[in-house]
Formats: sequence, C-alpha cells, structure tokens
Amino acid sequence: MRQIKILVLIFFLALQFGCSNQPEKSTNKHKTHEQLMTELFPKPKVAIKTVGILLYDGYTTLDAMGPYQVLSEMMGVKVFFVGRTKGLISNMNGVKTLCDTSISEVKNLDILVIPGGLRETYQATKDSLLLNWIKSIDSTTKYTTSVCTGAWILGATGLLKNKEATTHWFGKQILAEQFGATIKNSRYVVSGKYWTSAGVTAGMDMSLALLNEIRGEKYTKTAMLDLEYDPKPIYNAGSEQNTEKEIVEMMRSMYQGGMESVLHPKK
Amino acid sequence: MRQIKILVLIFFLALQFGCSNQPEKSTNKHKTHEQLMTELFPKPKVAIKTVGILLYDGYTTLDAMGPYQVLSEMMGVKVFFVGRTKGLISNMNGVKTLCDTSISEVKNLDILVIPGGLRETYQATKDSLLLNWIKSIDSTTKYTTSVCTGAWILGATGLLKNKEATTHWFGKQILAEQFGATIKNSRYVVSGKYWTSAGVTAGMDMSLALLNEIRGEKYTKTAMLDLEYDPKPIYNAGSEQNTEKEIVEMMRSMYQGGMESVLHPKK
Repeated sequence: MRQIKILVLIFFLALQFGCSNQPEKSTNKHKTHEQLMTELFPKPKVAIKTVGILLYDGYTTLDAMGPYQVLSEMMGVKVFFVGRTKGLISNMNGVKTLCDTSISEVKNLDILVIPGGLRETYQATKDSLLLNWIKSIDSTTKYTTSVCTGAWILGATGLLKNKEATTHWFGKQILAEQFGATIKNSRYVVSGKYWTSAGVTAGMDMSLALLNEIRGEKYTKTAMLDLEYDPKPIYNAGSEQNTEKEIVEMMRSMYQGGMESVLHPKK
Repeated sequence: MRQIKILVLIFFLALQFGCSNQPEKSTNKHKTHEQLMTELFPKPKVAIKTVGILLYDGYTTLDAMGPYQVLSEMMGVKVFFVGRTKGLISNMNGVKTLCDTSISEVKNLDILVIPGGLRETYQATKDSLLLNWIKSIDSTTKYTTSVCTGAWILGATGLLKNKEATTHWFGKQILAEQFGATIKNSRYVVSGKYWTSAGVTAGMDMSLALLNEIRGEKYTKTAMLDLEYDPKPIYNAGSEQNTEKEIVEMMRSMYQGGMESVLHPKK
C-alpha cells in the first residue's frame, strides 16, 4: 500500500484545508483527529532526515528493498538509494535500478544501510574508495547498519572490530575471522549505533526495530499494519537452528563453492 | 545471499567437472552429493519456466520485490519484470526500475504476479489494455496471482468473480463490492490456479507456499534458509485483528482520504 508518510501528508492537508470527507469514527468519538495524531505520532526520539541505502552491482534485492520499504514509513524523511556509481545498478540477476545519486555526492546521512550479496559483496570488502566513503559517512550518522553479508563490507572498514554483530548464518565465520566482529546469534544485533541483521529477510525485522527506537510503539504498529506484517511462514524453518542438518550442510557447501574463486583467487 | 539457482548451477558444475573442493560433510557421510541433491530437489510437480511480475507506475516496492526474491529461488526458471510500458517504471516514490520487456511483448507466462499499490492500482482497474493482456496471459498460466491490492486489478478482469480471494485489509470492501470476489480472511487464498495474498509482506508467504506446491517441502526450506526467513516481528501486530482499533481506524481514514479522488473523481 502507498506509504504512510504520503497518506499522512494527504490527511494533514485534508485537515488543514478543512476538506476531510471522513466523519469521526465511532471508536474514536471522544478524540479529535488532532489528538489522535498527536497520540499516535509523538515527536521522534531521534531526529532523522535522511536514510541512504547503498546499492552496488550484485546486491541481493530484498536486503535493500526490505529496509527501503520499512524505513520509507517514516514521515518527513528522505529515503533514497546511493549507488556505488551513478546510473543503473544491477541486482544479483541483472535487474537494474536507477540511482540518481552516487557515493561521491553524498557527504552525510542520518542512517546508512548496507545490503549484502555473495561474491560481489566480498569483493566490495576490498574496494577502498567505498570503504573510505563508509567511514566518512559513519562520522555523520546516527545509525550505521548492515543487512545480511552487508556486514562484511561494514566489517572491512574496521567499524565492527570487537563489537557484537551478526550477518547471514553462512557469513558469520568470515565476519569473525576476517573482520574481527564478535558474533552474536540474533535476528539483529544492536551495538550502540551499529545495527546488523541476519540474512536477507532479517533486514525488515531490524528496520522495524529501528523505527520503534526512533518513533515508538504505536508508530511501528501503524507501519506494520500498512505493510500487513504479521508473517505466517509455511514452515517453522529459515534458520540454521530449525532446519534439517542435511539442508544446512548442502547450502553451506553451495555457498562455499560460490565463494571459492573470491576467497582463494588463483594467482 | 546469491540465489540458490546460481549456486546450484555452480555446485552442479563443480560436480560435473570433478573440481569440488568440498569434502563430504560428516553429517552426510552415508550419502553422495548426487543422492542428496536428488533427495532434496525432486522434480517439480508442475513444470514452470517463466514467472512474470507486472510493474506499473505507482506499484508498492515490496509487493513486487518480495515475490521476485522468493520465486527467483526456483532453479531453471526465468523470473522477470513485465512493464506496463517498456523502460523505466517508477515505484510509489519515484524510484525507477528498468523493464526490458513490456506487456505487448509477453504472450504467455507460467506464473503471473500482480503487485498492488493505492491510487495508481485502482486507476489500473480501468486500464482496458492492461486488463485484456491479463485475461489473455491468464489463458496460458498455470498460476495467476496477486499481492495486496493487486487483487483489485485481477478482480477488474472478472477472473475473481465469485471466487474466494483476499487482498490488503483496507482493500477487501472494494474487492468484494466492485469486483465480486468472495472475501476470505487469510494470509493468502488459493482458488484453484488463482492465488491472492493479503497486504505487502503477505506476498512472500504466498510465494513460499507456491514454491512449496511446485517444488515440495525440502526445496522450500532450502529457500527459506537462503533468505533466512524465520521472522521475528518486534510486535504481535500487523493485521486488523491484532492491532489497536484506534490505529486501524486512523489508517482506514488515511487510505480513504488517499483514495477519495480516484473513487469519486470530480466531474
């Protein structure tokens, strides 16, 4: 559904211009709309104006689009994609999204989100231009976050060193051994302003928790209702702990096979 | 994480060329990789080659990107975006995705996915060129599906008439009254080959259920593990039933305010 911030703007405009067609609802008959809005939407606890979601060729679609959708629920906040380069950026399968803005143009952000992927994400951990940009942006952020193996990139800057963090289950060993993070097994991990999530879909849970920290419970529930986020997974599965060992090990083998050429490139 | 189909290809190639660096895992020591692969990935119950996800200006990002990510887990299947027009298609906030293919070029699909939105989605229910394309494609599909208010568009073709269906909680009244569907309150509803989901994030649950129907339990759990889909919402909320009434009613007012100009356009 269209996002709350636009709807709220419409709603506010309707109130402003006295042209609302909505009668007071019976459930709220003792409250005016203004009282209701004030109650549901208290002032943000942290002032957020900009959320930049990094896109680079090979990123995993939902790592970026999940947080994009959730964080776009914040009214009055500019949520936008920041391309490693300007122009069309390809997801892992070559689907292209247009980035009007590249890292060279963005000098500060309130929230940075770094999505993951596989080989291209690991390769990005050697991209000094990108890592320097992240470090520079981090000096301006209120929250620096990663989704899935995006933590590898964040870790490669040194910013997760000796901090509790998480990543996709397959990526934990690399995050700990190569980037010095202290792995915590959790859907998302909060280490001060550094928020990291487990794989792909965990980015949405992390983003909702971030929304909750910034805007509180009622606002978060409003966003969840807009997104009808009351998940009903077909199986109790999806994590290393609740999935059959043979599936976990086969997947691990597949990831390792996919990573071999970047972890141990032929000289 | 990079999608299974690519990894499986790599894995198969590694097996094929005898260059796998992975020793047999101890947990699978009595099974060869081939036996494991055959067991985990039995032949599809339904032959699927193409999945087309409709994009039109104003669509809700996650309505499209959730099913895209999940259905892309199917090996050997082409999952692609079909634009209402060719070229750049804007989501609700103006973020542009490049569609190499438009509806005029696509004559058949095994699975069609129709994402939702708000005003632009309702306007699409009057777009006869689009509705005729959907009816024509539907005559070729094995599954015709919608996410969120995408059901309005599907309903406008007449294909949901007197069938059980669902949509975003706000959209149910319109789906029933204007398009003759029989509303069923469920995360997703299966009416033969017509699958419809509740709002936004429900598209992922529906897509996993579809994957389960096509590829079975183990394949589905493999996909869930790849996407680490073991959701942990911050609140038990997200549906009309488990959210405070004042939040539900305020949201309903906002949607109605947003829809007013398209539901009752000034003459």
